[in-house]
Amino acid sequence: VPDLPVAVDAMGGDRAPAEIVAGARRAVEQHGIPVVLYGQRAAIGDAGGLEVVETTEVVGMGEDPAAAIRRKRDSSVVRAAEAVRDGQAAAMVSAGNTGAAVASALLRMGRISGVQRPGIATVLPVPGSIPTILLDSGANAECAPAWLAQFGQMGALYAASRFGVTDPRVGLVSIGEEETKGTTLVKEAHQLLARPGWLEAAGGRFIGNVEGRDALTDAVDVMVTDGFTGNVILKTLEGGVKVMVNAIVAAMGSTEQTREASQVLLPALLPLYEEMDPDTYGGAVLLGVDGVCIISHGQSSARAIVNAVRLAADMVRADLVGRLREVVGRAPVAPG
Amino acid sequence: VPDLPVAVDAMGGDRAPAEIVAGARRAVEQHGIPVVLYGQRAAIGDAGGLEVVETTEVVGMGEDPAAAIRRKRDSSVVRAAEAVRDGQAAAMVSAGNTGAAVASALLRMGRISGVQRPGIATVLPVPGSIPTILLDSGANAECAPAWLAQFGQMGALYAASRFGVTDPRVGLVSIGEEETKGTTLVKEAHQLLARPGWLEAAGGRFIGNVEGRDALTDAVDVMVTDGFTGNVILKTLEGGVKVMVNAIVAAMGSTEQTREASQVLLPALLPLYEEMDPDTYGGAVLLGVDGVCIISHGQSSARAIVNAVRLAADMVRADLVGRLREVVGRAPVAPG
Repeated sequence: VPDLPVAVDAMGGDRAPAEIVAGARRAVEQHGIPVVLYGQRAAIGDAGGLEVVETTEVVGMGEDPAAAIRRKRDSSVVRAAEAVRDGQAAAMVSAGNTGAAVASALLRMGRISGVQRPGIATVLPVPGSIPTILLDSGANAECAPAWLAQFGQMGALYAASRFGVTDPRVGLVSIGEEETKGTTLVKEAHQLLARPGWLEAAGGRFIGNVEGRDALTDAVDVMVTDGFTGNVILKTLEGGVKVMVNAIVAAMGSTEQTREASQVLLPALLPLYEEMDPDTYGGAVLLGVDGVCIISHGQSSARAIVNAVRLAADMVRADLVGRLREVVGRAPVAPG
Repeated sequence: VPDLPVAVDAMGGDRAPAEIVAGARRAVEQHGIPVVLYGQRAAIGDAGGLEVVETTEVVGMGEDPAAAIRRKRDSSVVRAAEAVRDGQAAAMVSAGNTGAAVASALLRMGRISGVQRPGIATVLPVPGSIPTILLDSGANAECAPAWLAQFGQMGALYAASRFGVTDPRVGLVSIGEEETKGTTLVKEAHQLLARPGWLEAAGGRFIGNVEGRDALTDAVDVMVTDGFTGNVILKTLEGGVKVMVNAIVAAMGSTEQTREASQVLLPALLPLYEEMDPDTYGGAVLLGVDGVCIISHGQSSARAIVNAVRLAADMVRADLVGRLREVVGRAPVAPG
C-alpha cells in the first residue's frame, strides 16, 4: 500500500459521481488503499468519510479534450493530475473523457524524459490465460515508427509489472506475418522493433507481426499498434463480444426448456463472463507520462473503480514509472 | 442463371482441390449453375462430369502475389481471370492466395473506367438482421481519401445488389463519431463522403463516422475503411468469435450436467452458429474490377464454395458490374 493516496476523479464517467464514490469507498474499506476524491462536494454527497478536494469544474464526456483542459483549470481531472505532479497523490484514476485524462496527465505530469509519446495500454482478456496488453489504444491516432518502437518497450515493462510475465512476447499488429506486409508505418516500426537488444533492454522479445485474430489468445503478450488501429481493435472486440453474448442470452431464453437448461449452464459460464467483463481489469494505464495515470472506461461501475484504484496502487508499488524512466529514458531514441 | 459458366479456381485454398471440386459439383447439381474448373486434372481426379480447363501452375497460399502472378501465367487463378476477360466465363471464384486473386483480376480484367482502386467487400454477419458490408478488407493497405469515397459508392451499390438494401447507410470507420476524430485520411475521406449527392448517386446515404463496435450490429449497412484497418477488423472479429465459441463449448462440456443441458440448448444456438459461420456467406467480392470476382477465405469448405458460386451467379444476374460502371465510372473523380 502506497503512503500517498490515490487521486480519484469523482466527476468523470457516465455513472459519476455515485459509482465512482462507491468504488473509491470500497477500495479504502476492503483493500486499505488511501483515496482522495476530486470533485464537487455538493454532487458527491456522502463521501463516507473520504477526503474530498473541492474542484469547481467538470469536463463532459463529449467535450473537446484540448479545449476543455485549457479552459477548465479547476476541473476534477486536471486537479487530480496536478496532485500527482505536486507529490500530493501517488497516482490518478479517471473514468471520464479519455482525451481529457490523457491531456491532463501529459500537460501536468509531463512525459518521462526520452519518451516521444505516451500510449494507452489496455488489457484484453484471454479466456483461461494471462491477458494481452494492447497499446496504443487511442492516445495517438497517427504515429511515427519510433513511437511504436517505444510502445514495445513500455508494453514489455508493463506486462512484467502487471502480470509478472517474464520475457514478454511483443508483436506488431499487421495484416500478415511477413515483415513485408502492412503499411509503411508498420514496415518501418518492424525494423525498429527487430533491432537486437531493443526489446531485450525492457526484458522482452520481438515475435514479429501479429494479427487481430491473436488478440484474445495467448499467442502474444503485448500487441503494439498506432492509436487508431488500437482503438478500432478494442471497440471491435467490445462490440463483437457484446453481440455474441446478447445473441446467446436470447437463445437461452427462447423456450421453457432452454431457460431450464441455461440455469444448469450458467455457473459454468460465469467465470468466462467475469473474465470478459471490462470491469474486471479496472482500467488502462497511460504509459510514458511521469506518474501513474489509470484511465477507466466511461461506463465504469463501482467494481471497475475498485479495480482501477487497486491497479493504481499496484503500479505505484511496482515502481512502474521508475522502471520506464530507467529503460525507455535511457535507450537510444529511435529515428523517425 | 447466367448463360456463361462460373470459372472456379480448383487449386486455391487450404482444402483444395477436394472441397473446391465438391462445392462446384453441388453448385451445378443443386442450383443448376454452370461451372468450369481451372486446375490440374491429375490433382482434381474425378470432376463428376464438370468441365476442367487444364492449367499447369499453382500459386501457393504463402507466395508473394505480384511475383507469383508475373511468373505463373498458366496458374489456375490467372487463367480463371482470363476466362472472364475473354468472355468465356461470367465470373471467377477463388479461395486461394487473396493477393494473387486480387492481382489476377486487376491485371487480367482491368479496372472499371473511373475506378481508382478496387476494394475487397466482405460480409459481416449481424445476428438476426441483414449483414454489414465492410470494405476495403485488405486489397489496399494504404489508401487515398478519394479511394475511400469510391468504396462508399461501390459498397452502397453492392448492398442493394446483394441484400436488396434500399437507401443503404454508409459509415466511415473512425475512433469517434465527431468528424474531427481520426487520422488525416479519415478526416479527408469524411469530407468527400459527405458531399451532397455523392452517395445518393449510388442510391445510398452517408451517416458519418462509425466505430468497430457497430460492425456486428444493424447500425450501419456499409462500413468504409482502408484495407489495413478493414483487414484488422475482419481478423479481430474472426478471432474474437472463435475464442468465445471455444470457451463456451469448453464450459458446456465441463461436467455431465452441463453436457446434458447443452443438448437442450444446442438447437436454439444452431441458427446463431450458422449465421456466424464464415462459410454461410461464401466469399467477398472484389469491387471495381471489370468483371465479377469472388474471393473466398482460405479454409473454404464445399459449403463455402457452393455459396461463393451462387453469389457469383447472383451478382452476374444483378449486373453489379454494369451498375458500378454507370455510377462510379460516371461520378466526378474525387480529388486526392
